[in-house]
Amino acid sequence: MGKCKRIGILTSGGDCSGLNAVIRSVVHCACGKGWEVLGIRQATLGLMARPPQFTKLEIDLVDPLLTSGGTMLGTTNKGDPFAFLMADGSVCDRSEEIIAGYHQLGLDALIGIGGDGSLAILRRLAQQGNINLVGIPKTIDNDIGITEHAIGFDTAVNIATEALDRLNFTAASHSRVMILEVMGRDAGHIAIAAGIAGGADVILIPEIPYNLDHICHKIKQRQEKGKNYCLIIVSEAVRTQDGETVTMTNSLGQSRYGGIGQYLADQISNCIGTETRVTVLGHIQRGGTASPLDRLVAAAFGVAAVELIAEGKYDYMVTWQNRQVFAVPIAEAIAQYKTVNPEDTLVKTARGLGIYLGD
Amino acid sequence: MGKCKRIGILTSGGDCSGLNAVIRSVVHCACGKGWEVLGIRQATLGLMARPPQFTKLEIDLVDPLLTSGGTMLGTTNKGDPFAFLMADGSVCDRSEEIIAGYHQLGLDALIGIGGDGSLAILRRLAQQGNINLVGIPKTIDNDIGITEHAIGFDTAVNIATEALDRLNFTAASHSRVMILEVMGRDAGHIAIAAGIAGGADVILIPEIPYNLDHICHKIKQRQEKGKNYCLIIVSEAVRTQDGETVTMTNSLGQSRYGGIGQYLADQISNCIGTETRVTVLGHIQRGGTASPLDRLVAAAFGVAAVELIAEGKYDYMVTWQNRQVFAVPIAEAIAQYKTVNPEDTLVKTARGLGIYLGD
Amino acid sequence: MGKCKRIGILTSGGDCSGLNAVIRSVVHCACGKGWEVLGIRQATLGLMARPPQFTKLEIDLVDPLLTSGGTMLGTTNKGDPFAFLMADGSVCDRSEEIIAGYHQLGLDALIGIGGDGSLAILRRLAQQGNINLVGIPKTIDNDIGITEHAIGFDTAVNIATEALDRLNFTAASHSRVMILEVMGRDAGHIAIAAGIAGGADVILIPEIPYNLDHICHKIKQRQEKGKNYCLIIVSEAVRTQDGETVTMTNSLGQSRYGGIGQYLADQISNCIGTETRVTVLGHIQRGGTASPLDRLVAAAFGVAAVELIAEGKYDYMVTWQNRQVFAVPIAEAIAQYKTVNPEDTLVKTARGLGIYLGD
Amino acid sequence: MGKCKRIGILTSGGDCSGLNAVIRSVVHCACGKGWEVLGIRQATLGLMARPPQFTKLEIDLVDPLLTSGGTMLGTTNKGDPFAFLMADGSVCDRSEEIIAGYHQLGLDALIGIGGDGSLAILRRLAQQGNINLVGIPKTIDNDIGITEHAIGFDTAVNIATEALDRLNFTAASHSRVMILEVMGRDAGHIAIAAGIAGGADVILIPEIPYNLDHICHKIKQRQEKGKNYCLIIVSEAVRTQDGETVTMTNSLGQSRYGGIGQYLADQISNCIGTETRVTVLGHIQRGGTASPLDRLVAAAFGVAAVELIAEGKYDYMVTWQNRQVFAVPIAEAIAQYKTVNPEDTLVKTARGLGIYLGD
Repeated sequence: MGKCKRIGILTSGGDCSGLNAVIRSVVHCACGKGWEVLGIRQATLGLMARPPQFTKLEIDLVDPLLTSGGTMLGTTNKGDPFAFLMADGSVCDRSEEIIAGYHQLGLDALIGIGGDGSLAILRRLAQQGNINLVGIPKTIDNDIGITEHAIGFDTAVNIATEALDRLNFTAASHSRVMILEVMGRDAGHIAIAAGIAGGADVILIPEIPYNLDHICHKIKQRQEKGKNYCLIIVSEAVRTQDGETVTMTNSLGQSRYGGIGQYLADQISNCIGTETRVTVLGHIQRGGTASPLDRLVAAAFGVAAVELIAEGKYDYMVTWQNRQVFAVPIAEAIAQYKTVNPEDTLVKTARGLGIYLGD
Repeated sequence: MGKCKRIGILTSGGDCSGLNAVIRSVVHCACGKGWEVLGIRQATLGLMARPPQFTKLEIDLVDPLLTSGGTMLGTTNKGDPFAFLMADGSVCDRSEEIIAGYHQLGLDALIGIGGDGSLAILRRLAQQGNINLVGIPKTIDNDIGITEHAIGFDTAVNIATEALDRLNFTAASHSRVMILEVMGRDAGHIAIAAGIAGGADVILIPEIPYNLDHICHKIKQRQEKGKNYCLIIVSEAVRTQDGETVTMTNSLGQSRYGGIGQYLADQISNCIGTETRVTVLGHIQRGGTASPLDRLVAAAFGVAAVELIAEGKYDYMVTWQNRQVFAVPIAEAIAQYKTVNPEDTLVKTARGLGIYLGD
Repeated sequence: MGKCKRIGILTSGGDCSGLNAVIRSVVHCACGKGWEVLGIRQATLGLMARPPQFTKLEIDLVDPLLTSGGTMLGTTNKGDPFAFLMADGSVCDRSEEIIAGYHQLGLDALIGIGGDGSLAILRRLAQQGNINLVGIPKTIDNDIGITEHAIGFDTAVNIATEALDRLNFTAASHSRVMILEVMGRDAGHIAIAAGIAGGADVILIPEIPYNLDHICHKIKQRQEKGKNYCLIIVSEAVRTQDGETVTMTNSLGQSRYGGIGQYLADQISNCIGTETRVTVLGHIQRGGTASPLDRLVAAAFGVAAVELIAEGKYDYMVTWQNRQVFAVPIAEAIAQYKTVNPEDTLVKTARGLGIYLGD
Repeated sequence: MGKCKRIGILTSGGDCSGLNAVIRSVVHCACGKGWEVLGIRQATLGLMARPPQFTKLEIDLVDPLLTSGGTMLGTTNKGDPFAFLMADGSVCDRSEEIIAGYHQLGLDALIGIGGDGSLAILRRLAQQGNINLVGIPKTIDNDIGITEHAIGFDTAVNIATEALDRLNFTAASHSRVMILEVMGRDAGHIAIAAGIAGGADVILIPEIPYNLDHICHKIKQRQEKGKNYCLIIVSEAVRTQDGETVTMTNSLGQSRYGGIGQYLADQISNCIGTETRVTVLGHIQRGGTASPLDRLVAAAFGVAAVELIAEGKYDYMVTWQNRQVFAVPIAEAIAQYKTVNPEDTLVKTARGLGIYLGD
């Protein structure tokens, strides 16, 4: 194990709050060891470019970024390198270019910050191209296995809860049903956490099918008690009792965020005629000052990832469990996609509070 | 002038933050004089109902509501009493019922909190029915004449600015054009204030026509300087250079909030192909904890309104100018609908900062 | 096990954010089962009073309190019932009065929300007087064993971090050493979490002795790199290398919060002459809107506590571990007082970031 | 008037939120005109140094600083150049060195951002040394004449109000008197604005003498109504009815912030024995993300200051009145030191709400 290393770091997939805090932590810890840190631009696109695109990262550069949202390195959620969409519409495997870029930069190791999709791709590149990879989990959806917490989730829940706090007042003032649509195509962690914390009356998540009549019953039940309003939080994909998953698609047939809220509002309006309004939280969930917890976990992940490299322990992902960081094989983490389990504490909590959470 | 009065208070039109702070202030001040305060439910609907619907307001009841959003009295932005839409689809003038409700409750005066539309209706009722009316201006749009500040505006600007702060990071991370659509059908005060405070690159408001080519030029100009992203804030109605106002309408042909952002995104995408995302801020603008400034103005308005009643000075609206409260005839205030004037400081400021604000 | 129960709930010890969210959750869940919930006033003082002081809790009463700080039931951190300080200065054991109060109210069970001290006292009362006790951990210090999270901790860390975020700017602008003193007499969890999240340069906690020279060295080292300012967070008690714990005492010889920061500032000033300023965060740490995470855990704890009663499982405390709630014997939880362990992830993280954390 | 100018900008006196937003605005506007902007380091110290200390300011450098607290240029509230305290303890007039520094840099004009003290000094330098000065008012105390708003005031009031919001809950939970000490030695603008917005029961400001008995009467009056707690906000200097101003002094006899709160707590405790706690808000008031209003005014001031230079209109200060910017002679502005006037709306508001505000 050489004393002085040169490592790369990249962020991949959708951005979120806390990414810069991870980068800052890695730079502080690695520079403290006398290492060199190259920040790769735009996820793997930076390694694919010739010459490879990167920024040399120093403490002074990253220090002011502790609280800031987004990623200073840029990111992309396009461009699977194994099936890369070229400008001419053709698709080709560009994995070898990325691998070559890594070696061309003389990197000893690469820290990849991403969700389960990004980590799977990075791992495949690493296996194929002899890249010393350490993974750090980030995703506002918090759907990565094993780790209690992925970077960005706490801030996203805070923002969604704050939105419910605001909608609650205007719902009550106008005797309306208010629907908040949040992100989470396959896992409803944001919706269930924010829904409980923000006092929603109905929470709809992809994991649990809903019954329109039961939603309407809940609304009527409240009205009978003199509460002429109702607060609903819904993930961007929901499932009907027939087992169908409802998502919105655009004109190209691609499924896209935004739309389920209105779909539901129309259903409810038709069913019981109550005035209904929809708010699509959108990209606001990804942004802004990282919460202290996201910054704390980011700091811990950054230091732990550097220590894994120092120990020559590759192909691992760091995890946060019970306020401690552990390392697990990346393969193991991404094999355990984490959805909201019907046996989860939060499911029981929502039901115990009388929230309608599907059937 | 009798010593001990019984006064009514109602909130009318769309809700906003700070309404409860006004109510609290009125109750503190009036109860301090030994008066009785009746909180009328659901704007004028509470006076139209038989028996009239109200809550007797005491200090203990309103004290905890200082910071809360919405209105504890409920409100409606439907139901013009002079052309009231009945359940059977017919339209009738129900103004006399409201006037009768006021007198039936034995009120000495009525404090009406509303926007310019609501205040105009309340004034017509007052003239017709011998109601001792005092007006308090509230509207997130801040489009009421004479007063520097209407209740709810500061909080709405804060929320819109915070949204820009968040979108800025994710725009930069993904090299996107991010569009934030905010409220303001006829006046762009929220958009221009939040746009300047939140560092927008383009601000589109109903008062100033825009030119699509100039927006695209601004985006390209930034890209040439290495800034592959752009932050745009847009009011819910915008004007093209041909003098057309663009708003969205629903299937009933009613104009409605939400849609202009996407309309603009499609135009920009077609024009220069940059990835563009839209966030419609929606009802979040109305809600949540009132800002300290909204609470301060609310407190000052509430006390001043009670003092006007104590002096028997009716048909006046309170205004906030240069951190002092004044009283102006309601008729005068609502005659001066306030839009963003091309000579305003904020227009010059936006242009001085290099923001594209239309032509 | 009878179907319909009457249960009591009380909050004990210093207040914090999230207590009302627990109460709300208990009421929702218990009332959903058709039970009756009595809110005992002022911790055990409400049971000691004759007649016992309580409020019957209904959903409508507690529903608006989801986000609010403090405790609607009131609390006290005085009055050990086994050695109660009487008005005449004498001390007497009043435990039997409390136990009699519990039985006089016909309670089937009691939910006690408190820190480790309060839970120990409540447990002793329960053992002695046949009280069916379930415990819920709350403390901004987060020093209760086994549970990852006690109610109030997350909000306190958020507030301390926000304070560091603010002080950071003014420190840099004025080239000052800024010291923030936070709570934590025996455990430095707030200081270490907020210190890392807020980018502190020095973190001093009761668990790890500090060396003044090393602090001054850190300040000078930064100055040599052109950073003429330094951010220090310190718990209310610190330990010197001689093993002495330094706390402040008042004129009665009682140790009290507030003072260590200034003590340290004087030491540093004398040592290297840099301008130094102190902020004592004080009671602000306890207050305000509960964070979404505190509300989420509060909701989960409330439901779980009611379920324990439904199962007749007493003498247990609920815990939060890895986003799930478990129940552990109260005795076991309070036997494991939790301090910052030198092997903790956060200690390694702080050191990895180059923060001075004592020797 | 030459086309292309070189201008300097400096921040002087205590830092506050919004300074960087002013700097950013000046740079955007001036660079848009093709001018050069030099950021002078550490107020006038940067011009006194040889060579003068400055940073060339470009848009890319200042753009990310829109929201950040403090001042990127550094500042000092020491060092009156006309009576400069030398390292050897002697005092000398160093004004000519500063003037020479200005000319040495070849500046066409200087934008000075400061409070009334700083602006007076800068004006004297300008008069003496032929400096083309434009002033921008900043002070959290908001005590500069004519302008409704100085940079930093809105953020400071927000932070003080937020502190009251937090203390309110813990005061009520523990049946305590809570005292919050805020800044404002000569003017009570922060205390009265935050006190009203934050629902304080007692507001003490330097302008209005207080009577201890009346404070205690207020506390007892509340207790009789079942409210066993009281929220007091106090400026750092208060006046007794004998006309004495009470401030705290340190061991050198210098008056200093922090201490009045405790002084008052002791008085109240002695008088009526209620448990009393003090929070000294301290430097937190100066810091953190600037409020949207502070950023808006900052943007408007920056553009207006550059326009004044473009017009060759010197010796003016920009002001904010009724949401418009005006220019007034600096001499006129600083001649009108602004305190809380007994005829002010806010005084009447506080009294109308039943707040004790002195006699």
